[in-house]
Amino acid sequence: MTSLAMIEAAASRLKGHARRTPLLSSPFLDDIAGRRVLIKPECLQHTGSFKFRGGWSAVSALAPDVRQRGVIAFSSGNHAQGVALAARQHGVPAVIVMPADAPQMKIDNTRALGAEVVLYDRVGGESREAIGQELSHTRGLTLIKPYDEPQVIAGQGTTGLEIAAQAAELGVETADVLVCCGGGGLTSGIALALEGHAPGLRPRPCEPAGFDDATRSLASGKIQANPTQSGSICDAIVTQQPGDLTFPIMSRLCGPGLVVTDDEAMHAMALAFSRLKVVAEPGGAVALAAALFRKDQIQGDTVVALISGGNVDPEMFRAALATYA
Amino acid sequence: MTSLAMIEAAASRLKGHARRTPLLSSPFLDDIAGRRVLIKPECLQHTGSFKFRGGWSAVSALAPDVRQRGVIAFSSGNHAQGVALAARQHGVPAVIVMPADAPQMKIDNTRALGAEVVLYDRVGGESREAIGQELSHTRGLTLIKPYDEPQVIAGQGTTGLEIAAQAAELGVETADVLVCCGGGGLTSGIALALEGHAPGLRPRPCEPAGFDDATRSLASGKIQANPTQSGSICDAIVTQQPGDLTFPIMSRLCGPGLVVTDDEAMHAMALAFSRLKVVAEPGGAVALAAALFRKDQIQGDTVVALISGGNVDPEMFRAALATYA
Repeated sequence: MTSLAMIEAAASRLKGHARRTPLLSSPFLDDIAGRRVLIKPECLQHTGSFKFRGGWSAVSALAPDVRQRGVIAFSSGNHAQGVALAARQHGVPAVIVMPADAPQMKIDNTRALGAEVVLYDRVGGESREAIGQELSHTRGLTLIKPYDEPQVIAGQGTTGLEIAAQAAELGVETADVLVCCGGGGLTSGIALALEGHAPGLRPRPCEPAGFDDATRSLASGKIQANPTQSGSICDAIVTQQPGDLTFPIMSRLCGPGLVVTDDEAMHAMALAFSRLKVVAEPGGAVALAAALFRKDQIQGDTVVALISGGNVDPEMFRAALATYA
Repeated sequence: MTSLAMIEAAASRLKGHARRTPLLSSPFLDDIAGRRVLIKPECLQHTGSFKFRGGWSAVSALAPDVRQRGVIAFSSGNHAQGVALAARQHGVPAVIVMPADAPQMKIDNTRALGAEVVLYDRVGGESREAIGQELSHTRGLTLIKPYDEPQVIAGQGTTGLEIAAQAAELGVETADVLVCCGGGGLTSGIALALEGHAPGLRPRPCEPAGFDDATRSLASGKIQANPTQSGSICDAIVTQQPGDLTFPIMSRLCGPGLVVTDDEAMHAMALAFSRLKVVAEPGGAVALAAALFRKDQIQGDTVVALISGGNVDPEMFRAALATYA
């Protein structure tokens, strides 16, 4: 189980490796939101998302002889790149199991970060778990899960330590902290960090409409699944349901979830472009969208919103600008 | 004349007001450049460009009774927004004189930052200097020049203090520091800061082809003008010629200038989007373009490149992505 001490230890290991992202703001966004908006742009993190923190934390926490044999992850997205770069920086092999129909650019990027990419036939029914188990067994690779893994949660939680310190520098003692939420690794890690270092800051998961498993799970008090996992432009944060490790933490510490539409996420992407000069992916923009377009559901003079990642296809980004910028 | 002490004093005044932008990097950019590339993204500065530093420095350096009467600037671009926000944060009036045919969005943005915008008929031959002089005289406004002004140079130089400290943290002692150069305020300020704090870092101005007045001035040892001031997409950094105050500093401290094409600047914008997740304007991308596409003209294992601003129209940005991303 992830503890505050584990998050602080992860922060020590990440020092000089992960980027301490700044807090951004814009008077134009404050006007839209009707309150001060502070943005934590984890799109500026190595590999373009917060996932590098969890990957680095998990790889660095392994015993040296275990780590030396290498790590394995299942992912076609941000977790893959985070684990790949973290492994390369530790000088150990990384195997990333990706569906054969993943975008070529994502496959190329993951390979360019030094990982060995193993493709499986998702459509034909090949089991990535079976492939992974076979590789783990024969090569001694350690599986790095994307969110339901204590050291991954601890790594993501380092974002919360930074938010606590940066908010204190600005004299902000109470605020909702809006977090883009998939499986809940980032949300639960931040929640633990804020509980320890800034108890007046309340974490709240943000999700796209139709994929609001965390919001419904929090409301009902038990884990709820999404009816489907495909069909959202916010693919980076769509998972089946909150994790067995992350949900109890979120349930204990988070305020109610916030849900935004795909169009609102696209609008927030365009505003991040024009007002903050950062690139957000659709899933990475849902918390900013909630800060801007769900103001009646938010309390206080100040709100903090994460931008969790910026790995967006140029076509999608151009579409957001064409409609909303 | 701007001194290192003035830059350090400006840094003290700017503390808690200007953003300390991080140093970014990407293994993909390192591969293109053939060396380590460290990027200082001043597009993330307040108002989307480094100009906020100089504006804040100049406004904060005024005697209180002088400042109280207000400030005036001639600009349709980044300097206007920097001065407008700095004045508003000091609670003093700002008048910005802009051509009547400036893009409506720039006029709106400057007004939204609290400035009074006075339009003049550029095409019909109205003199902005005459308008400014009249306003200064009747209302006691102090003119804040965009670059040839010691306290503006000192403010821009604070960027150099940060680069010196951030490079030292990474163990970088020698490198070329590539700076997007218009009138030379940023380049000369950084040059003075590096001379004092990181003498192994060599500043070099970067310019768009056809508007390489600083490069030619440095090569010939005396101030050279551009034949024209219009027709570049890199409008933010096109000026007639280096300043009377900035050129002697650049001449004493800078290495040779670097010149890139508009297409290379657009390509660098697309790479900043995909690899750094930041938004660069064409003029703001020329130094990154030089780092990536003029590698034979650069020395050392590491190069530092400024992104000076990100205030780009969505149409231009979409065009860069359509061609190069």
